[in-house]
Amino acid sequence: MDQLDLIRELAEENDTKIVLLVLDGVGGLSLEPGGKTELETARTPNLDAVARESSCGLMDVVAPGITPGSGPGHLALFGYHPVKHIVQRGALAAAGIDFVQEPGDVAARANFCTVDEAGSVADRRAGRIPTEESAPLCELLEEEVKIEGVQVFVRPVKEHRALVVFRGEGLDDKLHDTDPQQTGVPPLKPQVTEDGPAAKRTAQVVAEFLKQVREVLRGKHAKANMMLMRGFALKPDLPQFADVYKLRSAAEATYPMYRGLARLVGMEILTPRDTVAEEFEEVGANWDKFDFFFVHVKKTDSTGEDGDFDGKVEVIERIDADLPELLALGPDVLAVTADHSTPAKLAMHSWHPVPVMIRGPYVRTDQVAEFGESACSQGNLHRIPALALMPLLLANALRLAKFGA
Amino acid sequence: MDQLDLIRELAEENDTKIVLLVLDGVGGLSLEPGGKTELETARTPNLDAVARESSCGLMDVVAPGITPGSGPGHLALFGYHPVKHIVQRGALAAAGIDFVQEPGDVAARANFCTVDEAGSVADRRAGRIPTEESAPLCELLEEEVKIEGVQVFVRPVKEHRALVVFRGEGLDDKLHDTDPQQTGVPPLKPQVTEDGPAAKRTAQVVAEFLKQVREVLRGKHAKANMMLMRGFALKPDLPQFADVYKLRSAAEATYPMYRGLARLVGMEILTPRDTVAEEFEEVGANWDKFDFFFVHVKKTDSTGEDGDFDGKVEVIERIDADLPELLALGPDVLAVTADHSTPAKLAMHSWHPVPVMIRGPYVRTDQVAEFGESACSQGNLHRIPALALMPLLLANALRLAKFGA
Repeated sequence: MDQLDLIRELAEENDTKIVLLVLDGVGGLSLEPGGKTELETARTPNLDAVARESSCGLMDVVAPGITPGSGPGHLALFGYHPVKHIVQRGALAAAGIDFVQEPGDVAARANFCTVDEAGSVADRRAGRIPTEESAPLCELLEEEVKIEGVQVFVRPVKEHRALVVFRGEGLDDKLHDTDPQQTGVPPLKPQVTEDGPAAKRTAQVVAEFLKQVREVLRGKHAKANMMLMRGFALKPDLPQFADVYKLRSAAEATYPMYRGLARLVGMEILTPRDTVAEEFEEVGANWDKFDFFFVHVKKTDSTGEDGDFDGKVEVIERIDADLPELLALGPDVLAVTADHSTPAKLAMHSWHPVPVMIRGPYVRTDQVAEFGESACSQGNLHRIPALALMPLLLANALRLAKFGA
Repeated sequence: MDQLDLIRELAEENDTKIVLLVLDGVGGLSLEPGGKTELETARTPNLDAVARESSCGLMDVVAPGITPGSGPGHLALFGYHPVKHIVQRGALAAAGIDFVQEPGDVAARANFCTVDEAGSVADRRAGRIPTEESAPLCELLEEEVKIEGVQVFVRPVKEHRALVVFRGEGLDDKLHDTDPQQTGVPPLKPQVTEDGPAAKRTAQVVAEFLKQVREVLRGKHAKANMMLMRGFALKPDLPQFADVYKLRSAAEATYPMYRGLARLVGMEILTPRDTVAEEFEEVGANWDKFDFFFVHVKKTDSTGEDGDFDGKVEVIERIDADLPELLALGPDVLAVTADHSTPAKLAMHSWHPVPVMIRGPYVRTDQVAEFGESACSQGNLHRIPALALMPLLLANALRLAKFGA
């Protein structure tokens, strides 16, 4: 039995409010052995005060040693087994630019590439063409390509990357990539991974699309004269928050990717705001309408990815300064954590477990007096899988009935 | 591979004695943030002395955030995956009144109810008729109802609740409840959940039983004139302690529910005694006959359920005072823990992990000097699932062979 099935059976409604504050990539590493991490270096009196009223610990987001991407990281926080529930590349790309994929839509990542006269791939990324050049080409393709019975969306992502979505009856995502993963050979022909009329038809649609792409792009750009497609994906069929958790849930996130992931599990999307203070303000403005708020802060991750230890410290201190606005809303249960670590020392996502604290009227508090990796490691949550987070939040909100008599 | 299959392969006999002392619901919460729980408030010099010689920790009985009922709670302590091995309501009701369900018996919970002249349910609980009134009605039904080829047992549980057991050849439990879960409609007709001759026959037997119930009860009681049936259940087919663990096991419990659960896994049932001192005495009287003793103390849970913090503290202190009698028996391995938390603050079972300590000649002791939730949280067992308990007890008794060459 999947954990979600058990929770679906036990979840009950009441009028409590739960806030899940995700500081993307906040977990870090000290620059020197025995030193302090970014989070431990930052002066965070407000986060520390929450820690003192919380049950604290560390969480493995996917599994020990596994570095989570944003998709699996957030699915795990939301209580979905991240290895069982995979959001394929195409669907993630749609989520990442706020494109609302409808059931039946087949989405794929498409990279602009360069092919030579013979049709062989010369550059798989078309010289990493800048977005200002790829965006008009996308617009042109969306306008010019015509396929009977199928609506085609071509949207720029970043540089050579684009999203292509096919909307029509009877399409399927059981297709191989057309990217040959090497140069000097032609793009692969669209082929089905599993036989079936819908997959076959979709392969024909993609072949027709790519034929027209080649024609439309001819002579339009020195490098971007073709596309390579990857990760065909129907909208993932994820259990919905309202159904599984009996929660009216909302997401506040500055970056589209996180809104997209939240949308996939059925959250309502609040107006995106830029600063953390504004994000908290937006939550406040919608306080009465929802039971559960997922609030996503991006800059902890961006500075980590940039290898900017001091910048990450500064971002954390700014979040801490804004935190009272969120606390003032009076959430019954509050969790602060991350979807993965992003140590500036590594300048990338990492496998290190993330600190977590859960505050509520029925938590057993521990001796942790500071929100940091080492301090949380001494907390009474110990080291739990991220999958345990949603059940704990619901339990602390008295939203889970007893299991068995 | 199920854990039980692994343990079955590795378990060996020897002449050690293991005692599992379950203080039902002993885990608690402080009334004020940062304060002490019931267990931490109680003066417990004997439990604390055991803690100093033990490996201590916290246990998730079912999973983080999940509040265990008594059934799943004890099955987990006994090493049975509590979501995989479910004891259905009827079987639990039989266990709960010491009714020994035999293989093939179909047991169900039956509530006395009130139906109007037209046969519609007017009160699903017959005004919560007191046990003194329901018991004679049960006796009457057991005497009067006659079904060919089937022996019917009707036993009072409490107030409007009763247990009905059908004993005969070829019966099955694949039946829907007859309780419509609402008033103003007639009871549901017995219907099979899965087709099959045994289920069909059982549906007929239950229909005939309910027809006779209606006739026998006519004019006997102002409110209780019919029954609603729920949770039809054959005796659960649980792996047995003797087979899986190679243990001659015995249960000492004041309350029938816990004797019933122990019986389901093949434990012998010792004479029920009222006080903790008497329970320990009973264990002593049977010391030579068994390898494993499950000793269940109920009052820690009852006081918690009553929201009686001080009462729970007092019960714990009394158990502590009696503990030397149990220790004097010299168990090779002793574990003290709970099947779930029952904080007086919540006045109900809760999801909080339970403290656990394991004492034996081969445990790695830790710095824990007190049997309490916070102290145990610092122990070297850390936070483990309850399923790990039986393997640890067997290992510490040197009853588990090496796995693999």
